[in-house]
Amino acid sequence: MPQFITVADPDDPRVAAYRDIRERDLVGRQGLFIAEGETVLRAFVRDAPGRVQSLLVDPKRQDKLAEVFAALPDEVPVYLVEQAVLDRVAGFHLHRGVLAVGQKPEPVSADHLLAGLPGATVVLVLCGIANHDNIGGIFRNAAAFGVGGVILDSACCDPLYRKAIRVSVGATLSVPTAWLAQDEDVAGLLERHGFEALALSPAAPEILARLRPPLRSAVLLGAEGPGLSAELIARARPIGIPMAGGFDSLNVATTSGIVLHHLRFAQP
Amino acid sequence: MPQFITVADPDDPRVAAYRDIRERDLVGRQGLFIAEGETVLRAFVRDAPGRVQSLLVDPKRQDKLAEVFAALPDEVPVYLVEQAVLDRVAGFHLHRGVLAVGQKPEPVSADHLLAGLPGATVVLVLCGIANHDNIGGIFRNAAAFGVGGVILDSACCDPLYRKAIRVSVGATLSVPTAWLAQDEDVAGLLERHGFEALALSPAAPEILARLRPPLRSAVLLGAEGPGLSAELIARARPIGIPMAGGFDSLNVATTSGIVLHHLRFAQP
Repeated sequence: MPQFITVADPDDPRVAAYRDIRERDLVGRQGLFIAEGETVLRAFVRDAPGRVQSLLVDPKRQDKLAEVFAALPDEVPVYLVEQAVLDRVAGFHLHRGVLAVGQKPEPVSADHLLAGLPGATVVLVLCGIANHDNIGGIFRNAAAFGVGGVILDSACCDPLYRKAIRVSVGATLSVPTAWLAQDEDVAGLLERHGFEALALSPAAPEILARLRPPLRSAVLLGAEGPGLSAELIARARPIGIPMAGGFDSLNVATTSGIVLHHLRFAQP
Repeated sequence: MPQFITVADPDDPRVAAYRDIRERDLVGRQGLFIAEGETVLRAFVRDAPGRVQSLLVDPKRQDKLAEVFAALPDEVPVYLVEQAVLDRVAGFHLHRGVLAVGQKPEPVSADHLLAGLPGATVVLVLCGIANHDNIGGIFRNAAAFGVGGVILDSACCDPLYRKAIRVSVGATLSVPTAWLAQDEDVAGLLERHGFEALALSPAAPEILARLRPPLRSAVLLGAEGPGLSAELIARARPIGIPMAGGFDSLNVATTSGIVLHHLRFAQP
């Protein structure tokens, strides 16, 4: 069981990591992240108990979280903070009443991540996805369809930002993730590891519904609007999802769900 | 061409419909709605020019919108309002700089909507979807895959709320929509019109990927968490999308995209 520590003073230094999280979250915090809400907390403690640094919980919610506490290492502090104090610590009204500070995992290279995957697998490669809702939604789908990992280029936003974690329902805490180096040759990397690169592109003549899933697929997704670079598309197999008249694209998170569902269940 | 009217005073009664929209939007506004942003505005003027009541535009954006103005009826006023004044009218910083007030269409009964559809078609039936992001995402997918219409029960939120319109990229303004009466027998209604009711339910043994699309499908979606009522599932054909271990559900908008893609492209 963890240690329970009641904190009544919003300026108590023991809860400094939770202070003004709205502003600080976006500027990064030396290897730490903030997670919020019961569902996310349950996923975090289940998937990575060793990376939980502390919890901050409104005592009214203590009973509902008993089995979460039981799964925590003994040395993890749980700060019990009334909602009104919690709001002053966080700097805004945090109606979920449950927060955690976690330690980010050591960065893994994309090469290392791919090398560790089994023969038949799917990975996602995200290029320039800078919206936290979309990143979160994509990771949620990645977990739901059991992808081997997610690879991000340097123009993507942080999947361990509070909102991305929440939208992913905690999936960004558990799905294996790697960052590409600036200008890393992703097409070459995928080829070396035996992955077929599928570049999702609305205008591609080969349509997803007729694609026979390759044994090892890498799904390349770009941001809505700019999409993937022409260079990258030229070195991959472009795949499209035709739209009804007048509509030019799907949301990128929805696209990831449609593609992952197809790759998982279509006849190979 | 519309009439251009420069407004410099935030209290000018001619822009009263745009005042404090954040608060007023949620309480309804006698048959009117607010739409925001260039993409949405283009969709609105393209799909329903006769329902545009007025526009409010930062003059800096006037040139980019020339062909939108050209498509408007002559009597529609376009209020030209500098960004700083616009923010005071709206009651918050509206960085998109483009707003419209539109007239909601006359309500249509679900019975009437279904009666007007062609032989082979898909409709969505939404039960208790009360989140504007999800409603917007579902309508975006509905437009992208060309559904015949969307039917909402009385527990759904308004698809013509500003945020739902924005997330839908304007699709809530054009996709045919009808509301069910309180306690209306939706299973009976669908049967009468020859629709096969497909109840999406995570635990259903029949999986989506093996479903041969019926000629007339009605896709029933419930809110994340509670899902569809057991009663409704019992009167429909339950369809599931199996998840990888530990994950229990997809986002409902993503689910709609996966199902609509399958119904549109799978072999019948």
